[in-house]
Amino acid sequence: MPSIDRVRVLSRDAAGATEREDLLAVEEPLEIRLRSPASDRADSFVTTMRTPGDDEDLAAGLLFAEGVLAGDADLLAIERPSDPRVDRELRDNVVIATVSTEALARSASLRRRTVMGSACGVCGKTSIEDVLGSDREPIASELEIAGDVLLTLPDRLRERQSVFAQTGGLHAAGLFDPNGRLEAVREDVGRHNAVDKLIGSFLRLGQVPISGFVLVVSGRAGFEIAQKAAAAGIPVLASVSAPSSLAVELADAAGLTLVGFLRAPRFNVYAHPRRIS
Amino acid sequence: MPSIDRVRVLSRDAAGATEREDLLAVEEPLEIRLRSPASDRADSFVTTMRTPGDDEDLAAGLLFAEGVLAGDADLLAIERPSDPRVDRELRDNVVIATVSTEALARSASLRRRTVMGSACGVCGKTSIEDVLGSDREPIASELEIAGDVLLTLPDRLRERQSVFAQTGGLHAAGLFDPNGRLEAVREDVGRHNAVDKLIGSFLRLGQVPISGFVLVVSGRAGFEIAQKAAAAGIPVLASVSAPSSLAVELADAAGLTLVGFLRAPRFNVYAHPRRIS
Repeated sequence: MPSIDRVRVLSRDAAGATEREDLLAVEEPLEIRLRSPASDRADSFVTTMRTPGDDEDLAAGLLFAEGVLAGDADLLAIERPSDPRVDRELRDNVVIATVSTEALARSASLRRRTVMGSACGVCGKTSIEDVLGSDREPIASELEIAGDVLLTLPDRLRERQSVFAQTGGLHAAGLFDPNGRLEAVREDVGRHNAVDKLIGSFLRLGQVPISGFVLVVSGRAGFEIAQKAAAAGIPVLASVSAPSSLAVELADAAGLTLVGFLRAPRFNVYAHPRRIS
Repeated sequence: MPSIDRVRVLSRDAAGATEREDLLAVEEPLEIRLRSPASDRADSFVTTMRTPGDDEDLAAGLLFAEGVLAGDADLLAIERPSDPRVDRELRDNVVIATVSTEALARSASLRRRTVMGSACGVCGKTSIEDVLGSDREPIASELEIAGDVLLTLPDRLRERQSVFAQTGGLHAAGLFDPNGRLEAVREDVGRHNAVDKLIGSFLRLGQVPISGFVLVVSGRAGFEIAQKAAAAGIPVLASVSAPSSLAVELADAAGLTLVGFLRAPRFNVYAHPRRIS
């Protein structure tokens, strides 16, 4: 399924109106179903709007961020519906994750707690406790990155996006090593999805926690982005735009270095500046 | 509860690092509970992250967008928890909506359909059918707005935001009449919330459908933003950035005029250009 669509558009400027072709980011729903290894029956867990592509990574990352998967051992398989009677378009928009019995029990408990939206508490403090848990250790990674290297990362991320994506059609999330080398990048109309795809791809390779990389996101850093980074053990989160108050509180509590307004020649550090040398 | 927070931040530029004060948009969870007029018991419907302020508008707008409220007659009251034993911080993050028996039944059916995320179908087409319904008429409003007026709206929206908000801390959504006069504006860290607050404020005044105004949003126009505009009967949606493919399809089916990349001196019209004169 393509991630970019062509449409006819009426373009208006001082010279008048002209009809031309325009590119759009595709947005389609993805339904994530869960099943146990002992059963053929898969139950719907969530439907999320996303840009098609890396759907298995997105499902793995989302299930990890929501706490269904505690680690890669909980994810036994991830695949499309195989029944040939299933409509083609439906098949493109469904993935089925076979998960451990423990993960399935956690998903049932999440279902009970949440009707819609993420499983957050009713005040910032309980939200952070929910995310970190009482026994969670702060992120221990000793990774250090030079401020000068950090300043180059947004441009390096943009270079890896298509021209279309650079015009604002797609958000990007990238993981860089401390020398500024891009390890992996994922794109989506949604910032959260781009991060889930990226972390999900590492989870499926058994490479979570992600202690050796810096996460750079093209948009803002709100609570949920910080939550995903902290859950994956990423030591540094850098955003080209503003963090929210709760993202800063979470980063502070989780031992996550949080950088905002990363726009050469300057940036701000909102939590744990020790990793910026 | 304040919508802006002050934090200490380490600011780095070519001259070195300095510690200074920075402003952040506050992000806190809001839990929306529902109850019937015949009972004191309120059940949690959803918890969403938002910037405090206009919480009752946000709740009304979200319940309308999700299809719990079919109109203002379904919303009987909306208030904070009144029990003095409830913790202050909790009270600031909870609103209780008293809704009609019909609305309560719809909320129960939505609970069954969705675990998390919005109640969308598993392909773009069924998502649009879900939103529009089979008996829904296209938006009929004969409103017209001149292209020259349209081009002035993003600046007028920004002028009404605080300096802080203009730096990227908060998204804004505004309703303008065809002469370019700003009727109402709402802000939030989340684009969806800003739109829900705006439409919710009209709903609470009994002024939905909103047939006489143009909705301008500071970010992109994805499916959910177009869905909220169409549900409220708004004839024109204009975004300063890109729409998604599914937003264009929905606008086309709903009779909604969709403008994107509204940045003087130009803009694009993706659906129903007849309302731009």
